[in-house]
Amino acid sequence: MELEGSHVGILGLGLMGGSVASGLSRWGKLRSLSAWDEDGQSLKSALSMGIISRAAESLEDLIRLSEVLILAVPMDLMVPLSRLGAPHGSGLKAVFDISSVRGDIHQGLGEIWGEPHMGFHPMAGSERSGLDNSSWEMLRGATVALIPGEGTGQEVIATAHRLAQALDLRPMEMTWEDHDRAVAWVSHLPMVLATALSLGAGEATEAVDQIPYLAAGGFRDTSRVACCSPWLLPPLLEHNGELGPAIDRAIEILKEIKDWDRSTAVQRTSQGASWRNYIVDGPGRSR
Amino acid sequence: MELEGSHVGILGLGLMGGSVASGLSRWGKLRSLSAWDEDGQSLKSALSMGIISRAAESLEDLIRLSEVLILAVPMDLMVPLSRLGAPHGSGLKAVFDISSVRGDIHQGLGEIWGEPHMGFHPMAGSERSGLDNSSWEMLRGATVALIPGEGTGQEVIATAHRLAQALDLRPMEMTWEDHDRAVAWVSHLPMVLATALSLGAGEATEAVDQIPYLAAGGFRDTSRVACCSPWLLPPLLEHNGELGPAIDRAIEILKEIKDWDRSTAVQRTSQGASWRNYIVDGPGRSR
Repeated sequence: MELEGSHVGILGLGLMGGSVASGLSRWGKLRSLSAWDEDGQSLKSALSMGIISRAAESLEDLIRLSEVLILAVPMDLMVPLSRLGAPHGSGLKAVFDISSVRGDIHQGLGEIWGEPHMGFHPMAGSERSGLDNSSWEMLRGATVALIPGEGTGQEVIATAHRLAQALDLRPMEMTWEDHDRAVAWVSHLPMVLATALSLGAGEATEAVDQIPYLAAGGFRDTSRVACCSPWLLPPLLEHNGELGPAIDRAIEILKEIKDWDRSTAVQRTSQGASWRNYIVDGPGRSR
Repeated sequence: MELEGSHVGILGLGLMGGSVASGLSRWGKLRSLSAWDEDGQSLKSALSMGIISRAAESLEDLIRLSEVLILAVPMDLMVPLSRLGAPHGSGLKAVFDISSVRGDIHQGLGEIWGEPHMGFHPMAGSERSGLDNSSWEMLRGATVALIPGEGTGQEVIATAHRLAQALDLRPMEMTWEDHDRAVAWVSHLPMVLATALSLGAGEATEAVDQIPYLAAGGFRDTSRVACCSPWLLPPLLEHNGELGPAIDRAIEILKEIKDWDRSTAVQRTSQGASWRNYIVDGPGRSR
């Protein structure tokens, strides 16, 4: 289906829902852009900011108003709210969820929504949250992982590409298994390592109180993503089945490092640095 | 002893030796500032840059010319070069080594040099190396760990404080055990974790080639210090006896994280974030 001239609904007006609303209102080619959020104040703000054209009265109302529905609620609410809303979604042609983990959530949503459902995960974010920090600019130029389900229709995939284009996102189709493995390594494991480093350094600081005076850029950068909201990590541990194996592999490599002789150390650290540069500066950064 | 009006010698004109030379020549209150480096070109450059007043003809010559000697050679050369030089050091009043690890190096140097020896480790650096990248500005305002040995004289400790002042460093006296534990956590373990993350993410990229497209700021920052010279990590693993236990503790915490229930996860990630902020923004950053 064409996105232009259609009725789009956004469920949830936090950082990501607000940014998508902001991007779509800037695009300006929809017939209507509705939203619903449990927090009535967010709805009012979005209307007064001019980033939505209509505030739905309820979850059911939003779903009845929409041809394309974008689920932008916290991960844990994706399945329960979908169960409540799906019976009202007979007019829906596409349902995109922005969940940053697939796994059981992807499968649950596929069962509830069927053919119209697919994952749409923009690789963009901020350490700040909420509508007030949202912006179309956060999304601009970022990769969006497009993750079809088993039953996703071809027309839905085409619509996802159009949505990516409207938001100036760079679409990349993936299987949900590859998506979860990728984010386990580049997004979730960094948070886990940063948290382990911070907790261990904290314990060490209880014994050696000069530690903060000696910490410089290496500690600062390696630990940075430990400072995310404490509500962020737990659902990732629960829903991303690839995160456990990634932690296990990291533990194995840490044990290997302890036993490196000099030549192995030089060879393996060079290899690590090469991979790091490839991942950070490589094909993903050609934009 | 007073530093003002004295003869100072620097052994090794790399990034750190060059920066110390640059800082002392800017201070401008020495009688002479000599240096020796295996690489004759570095000596010539330092003379033409005006950051030393005299190029010694040999290691022995440098030591004979100096009242205060600053050892700024790679970690592995500290002890062997000291063995060669010490018989010529009867006129030395203070010997400072800038080694970033204490352990057996600290003890070895203490045995060779005796009362004049002490550790002087500026917590400053760069991912670039060599005289060409050195600068007094790299040191300005950084903490310098002052690490007396068992036999270090009180006058030597006072001289170390004067040297810190001349270089605009912030002195902090520590035991060598506390120093090694501190740098294991805030400097060496971050390199180890970044290396493990990069190696594991590299393996994952061999299986899922879209990974680089999904990597964003979290991966970039957490892996940054994996990009150091491959020659940097091996001697740290060898000489810092506190690094192995720090890796072991990190492994234990990673295993705990896998088993966290929600409330533990929220409580422990909050605790990690607090420690991280205290270490990064706390007393050490009051400057």
